[in-house]
Amino acid sequence: MKVGILGYGNLGRGVESAIRQNDDMELTCIITRRDPKSITPATEGVKVYSVDEIEDLKDQIDVLVLCGGSATDLPKQTPEYAKYFNVIDSFDTHARIPEHFAAVDKVAKENGHVALISCGWDPGMFSLMRLYGASVLPEGQDYTFWGKGVSQGHSDAIRRVAGVKNGKQYTIPVESALEAVRAGKNPELSTREKHTRECFVVPEEGADLAKIEEEIKTMPNYFADYDTTVHFITEEEFARDHAGIPHGGFVFRTGVTGLEKEHKHVIEYSLKLDSNPEFTSSVILAFARAIYRLSEEGGSGCKTVFDIAPAYLSPLSAEELRAHML
Amino acid sequence: MKVGILGYGNLGRGVESAIRQNDDMELTCIITRRDPKSITPATEGVKVYSVDEIEDLKDQIDVLVLCGGSATDLPKQTPEYAKYFNVIDSFDTHARIPEHFAAVDKVAKENGHVALISCGWDPGMFSLMRLYGASVLPEGQDYTFWGKGVSQGHSDAIRRVAGVKNGKQYTIPVESALEAVRAGKNPELSTREKHTRECFVVPEEGADLAKIEEEIKTMPNYFADYDTTVHFITEEEFARDHAGIPHGGFVFRTGVTGLEKEHKHVIEYSLKLDSNPEFTSSVILAFARAIYRLSEEGGSGCKTVFDIAPAYLSPLSAEELRAHML
Repeated sequence: MKVGILGYGNLGRGVESAIRQNDDMELTCIITRRDPKSITPATEGVKVYSVDEIEDLKDQIDVLVLCGGSATDLPKQTPEYAKYFNVIDSFDTHARIPEHFAAVDKVAKENGHVALISCGWDPGMFSLMRLYGASVLPEGQDYTFWGKGVSQGHSDAIRRVAGVKNGKQYTIPVESALEAVRAGKNPELSTREKHTRECFVVPEEGADLAKIEEEIKTMPNYFADYDTTVHFITEEEFARDHAGIPHGGFVFRTGVTGLEKEHKHVIEYSLKLDSNPEFTSSVILAFARAIYRLSEEGGSGCKTVFDIAPAYLSPLSAEELRAHML
Repeated sequence: MKVGILGYGNLGRGVESAIRQNDDMELTCIITRRDPKSITPATEGVKVYSVDEIEDLKDQIDVLVLCGGSATDLPKQTPEYAKYFNVIDSFDTHARIPEHFAAVDKVAKENGHVALISCGWDPGMFSLMRLYGASVLPEGQDYTFWGKGVSQGHSDAIRRVAGVKNGKQYTIPVESALEAVRAGKNPELSTREKHTRECFVVPEEGADLAKIEEEIKTMPNYFADYDTTVHFITEEEFARDHAGIPHGGFVFRTGVTGLEKEHKHVIEYSLKLDSNPEFTSSVILAFARAIYRLSEEGGSGCKTVFDIAPAYLSPLSAEELRAHML
């Protein structure tokens, strides 16, 4: 299975390294909007093309992995390139999924390609857990917690504050809230009761620290509804302790069964990820395998993780799966 | 969707009560090998038939849920009744799944029915977690732990010991083993290091307690390879504290990503179930919905949980799922 990558940022590099862990896949090329000469792939011998040449690569790629951002890149790119390729993306603006799906589905169907949108862990694995949980425990409640991990959007927001040279924000689930859910107490949790936010800020020289802290903590949408702590650190400490992009989280389904609804059940799924983009890439590749297979079977149109029978994700045969994993 | 139940034990009663939690399902009838008059369903107005009349019920049942045991009932029943019905079972003898699959698949295909075998939580939800985990983290390790919960097989084994009036066995995962896995240490764990076994025994009057304890602890296959504790209790304590059938467990996938395999990831899925048969029944019904839909689409043959696209499990439409769960 020949994989192409469009966009060589954190996610693109994650896909590149994950391909090496899947024996049935091969990286054909990296496609970029930048000058191809400015990119040196980690994989020897892999060609880099300009996005202007993308149509010419039609016959060289079984699945194109779109590694752009959800705000402006993917809403354009996924429908556009579904003309030429089977495509997969990690579109994660939950509220806009229906319109993105419709746009991609139309083009994919017209051109006989299979597309899969919103792949990764949330949306992605967490969505699957919400669906399985609600299906097997129809009378119950869902809880999703994120963290501990780096929120890119909140880190960007910190860095826009005057006097901030560098910054990173960690989203942290509140332990007592997790415990209450785990104990089957079905708590009603406010935004503030679910997560705290921890910020590590490198200030510019002579900056007013109290003012920075105040501005962060009262920032609407991002921080005002949370208990936020702000730590000022040096550039060296930042580089030493906050270089990674860890993340993770929890999905719970709690519910009841029995004639008198007398029995409680708790389903808990959690991820602890050293590298958010690398794990996301790994999930994307498993689903890329699935859409390649669907395409080989003559399928077309847009899919989500909900539409993929799990057996399609594995390189093992149905017989092997039944014998060893069931 | 009209559901029939064959076998009115713990699982059959679990299916009966779970049907009430699924608005799109209705219990048509209970079928039994016993005298139908000996059974009083919990659901008013539900008919009870003898298994001898089962062929006559062909047009009244969309999916027949087989609630027999894996040792002798299901290997016969599932292929036999796949002649007349779409069927689902909870066959859980892992080693014999391939032959059971083949037998059921043949009959289901010949008769244009859809069957699904080995549904529940292990095999079932745990199998799905092993498959998803291995697919998204191809370089990694699997761990499955069971408990804390009642093992029916081990409880039966205790009750066969001379001098034992009643007994129940709990399988308990070793906390330090869970912690080592959770920390990404990839431990190699022996049988003894993964689980302990705790037995609650009501002895017959005048029985030799030391002898009972010795016999349990040294029982090959069941207890000899484990650290086992035996508690002697009264019939009253047994009835008060050990009436339930709780169970649960953990599935982990730990793995690495990155060009230097420098990033660790831990996926953890856990179940805490007040009632093993009721949760199993709830899972079965979600998959019964899926096979009914596959049957309506003209499908046939034997499936497992691996073959079912998750969207088929939910009563919600694909649009609703994308808008609210993705």
